[in-house]
Amino acid sequence: MANLNEFNSWLLSLNPFGLTKNEEIKSKLEAQKIEVFDFTLGDPKEPTPSFIKKALIENIDDISQYPSNMGSALLRKSCSNWAKKRLAIELNPDQHIISSNGSKEAVFHIPQVLLNSASDKRIVIFPEPGYPVYKAGTILAGGIPYANPLKKSKNYVFDPAEIPNEIANKIAAVWLCYPHNPTGAIISKNQMEKIYDWALKYNIFILSDECYLDMYYEGQEIPPSFLEISYKNNFKNVLSFFSLSKRSGMTGYRSGFVAGEKEVISLFAKYRLNVGLGTPDFIQKAAVAAWDDTEHVVERSRIFANKRKVIDQFFEKNKISALPSNATFYVWGDVPNSYKTDKEFSDALLNATGIMVTPGSIFGESCNRNFRMALVPTVEKIQECLQKWQLKIDSGEFKL
Amino acid sequence: MANLNEFNSWLLSLNPFGLTKNEEIKSKLEAQKIEVFDFTLGDPKEPTPSFIKKALIENIDDISQYPSNMGSALLRKSCSNWAKKRLAIELNPDQHIISSNGSKEAVFHIPQVLLNSASDKRIVIFPEPGYPVYKAGTILAGGIPYANPLKKSKNYVFDPAEIPNEIANKIAAVWLCYPHNPTGAIISKNQMEKIYDWALKYNIFILSDECYLDMYYEGQEIPPSFLEISYKNNFKNVLSFFSLSKRSGMTGYRSGFVAGEKEVISLFAKYRLNVGLGTPDFIQKAAVAAWDDTEHVVERSRIFANKRKVIDQFFEKNKISALPSNATFYVWGDVPNSYKTDKEFSDALLNATGIMVTPGSIFGESCNRNFRMALVPTVEKIQECLQKWQLKIDSGEFKL
Repeated sequence: MANLNEFNSWLLSLNPFGLTKNEEIKSKLEAQKIEVFDFTLGDPKEPTPSFIKKALIENIDDISQYPSNMGSALLRKSCSNWAKKRLAIELNPDQHIISSNGSKEAVFHIPQVLLNSASDKRIVIFPEPGYPVYKAGTILAGGIPYANPLKKSKNYVFDPAEIPNEIANKIAAVWLCYPHNPTGAIISKNQMEKIYDWALKYNIFILSDECYLDMYYEGQEIPPSFLEISYKNNFKNVLSFFSLSKRSGMTGYRSGFVAGEKEVISLFAKYRLNVGLGTPDFIQKAAVAAWDDTEHVVERSRIFANKRKVIDQFFEKNKISALPSNATFYVWGDVPNSYKTDKEFSDALLNATGIMVTPGSIFGESCNRNFRMALVPTVEKIQECLQKWQLKIDSGEFKL
Repeated sequence: MANLNEFNSWLLSLNPFGLTKNEEIKSKLEAQKIEVFDFTLGDPKEPTPSFIKKALIENIDDISQYPSNMGSALLRKSCSNWAKKRLAIELNPDQHIISSNGSKEAVFHIPQVLLNSASDKRIVIFPEPGYPVYKAGTILAGGIPYANPLKKSKNYVFDPAEIPNEIANKIAAVWLCYPHNPTGAIISKNQMEKIYDWALKYNIFILSDECYLDMYYEGQEIPPSFLEISYKNNFKNVLSFFSLSKRSGMTGYRSGFVAGEKEVISLFAKYRLNVGLGTPDFIQKAAVAAWDDTEHVVERSRIFANKRKVIDQFFEKNKISALPSNATFYVWGDVPNSYKTDKEFSDALLNATGIMVTPGSIFGESCNRNFRMALVPTVEKIQECLQKWQLKIDSGEFKL
């Protein structure tokens, strides 16, 4: 090979994307005819609502042309309408919104817009536990990634008071994610406001991954957005990242949007035009249908709330503790004390029951006493595997 | 705004993507009810073959899941079959091929895999005239872009003998594009072999943009690929970039693939998994249908050959010279001597006839005596506007 020693060193040092490792184990077990109940990958199996699929099919033009870089005016209007209904704010479709291909690529690319690798102010704070892409994107853009361990004692809410002043001055941006993957933690408006004041004081940009914002259980407190907090300040120093993947069962469509401070949206548009990241028009049309509707979102949330209830009851009965949450579709459990490590627990569980959970340390070393369950199997499958687990507990084959 | 002075300096210095500027002028003229004949944007208006559209519609799963990062096994097999038929080479679908979302994003991203910004060996050669993304992607990855002016006297073929040895040692990669956008120039296998020998000697990676490889006129010489040249050498130091945009009228679908040295494909896969660049499955299914068929490609090429003939006859009659070409759908004309600059010519042409052509300098300052016409309007529209142009020439209103 040409230049192996010359290759981009960050890439060589990068871990494989953690969540995909399990696929091998799964294939192996399935080859042995052992049924696997996979709670690892955040890719729910509830069907995409048929009206969304229909919107795509009906909008494939005979003549295919390059998609608009910003997203069509129709899509941006639709996102703006959603924000008006959901957050009671006005986003100008021509200034505050840009289409993205899901939120992952936008999360990865945005540091390349915000960071200057020659500047002293290039630290990017990211939460631990958290989505690995915050760190990877920071490194590639020449930023300095700085893990902020979220504390159970603070309900996994970021506390700016923990950041020393001399660090704060060098921070370019902070990644936040509420409702939080992987814990399901939520944040209050009051807590958001404190973080926003701190960010403005140190001229820090808030990058708010809000792809689970609509994934909350009915009748509970509605998760807030940093767009609400910064609305009266023209969204200064704020970008929020939204996605249809989880909200509307569209992981395979790759559609989302980014909204916030207009100057940065405009720079991001300039950047994205050079990269060639336009979303295919027919996918944008499906996205319009999805953002325009809330009924299917409520229905999906009911399904996840129901799954959560089944797990909670099982955990309560067996004295396994987990962070209470009314949002996302993740359950963040504590590894029982009888296990030395999170991996020992997840391996034992897999061997005894076929249940696959993600060891917490995948989301950061400080989380090695936790595990994550994504509520992906159907409620029937969840009941089935919990019965299996219960039998193994009752027989003493699985220790707790 | 947060950090304007701290922003990524390359982005602030980057030109807006040149080819989109014309949209404003066009809207203005159309508002004045002046018919515009747009030969600027390389986005043909021939419909996508209906069997491709059908393949997409029939393959939208009810349950939407994350797309595979490499592209499905089916798609990679299909690309491999195409290569076997078209290039008489064997690409291993599991090692030599990865799906991309069109070729633009792959062209932009690949330097982030190949370059080490801390290395002395980080020059990237790109052709002038050429696609602006080669340079933008190089800059972002911390490489040193180095324009290589292609010479009319050498039929716009890259000549490694022009590169001084002391530069060659510091070159990480060279971008080539044959059939060539914007000139339509082609390259022979013999010329490719010489370039490949030079690249191996200096351990330089060849990045070959071959998105026009199937866009040649029937009965003419068939454009070669660097994959053919490097086949017996396990594609060492070679990546070729392919796209369905032009070949199959699918610009809006965003689908292509990259093939070549397996170690680099594997690193690119690792990189892309972190960025989240998987191609939606239903688009991959449409891509399979497209790569599996050659009939529609022959038919499309006939249409472009026909358009080219009409232009060639008009140019010959009026003694406007253009580079002869049997490939791409571009015409690379010489600005008549009576015009001081390419922009003066294109403005005069637009004002007199409504015909929009791209001034050569958009593709590099050294090309300011040229203009490019993309054969995008229908042949009827081309005939209509050339008649208009002829009248203005005959009446003396348009000087040549």
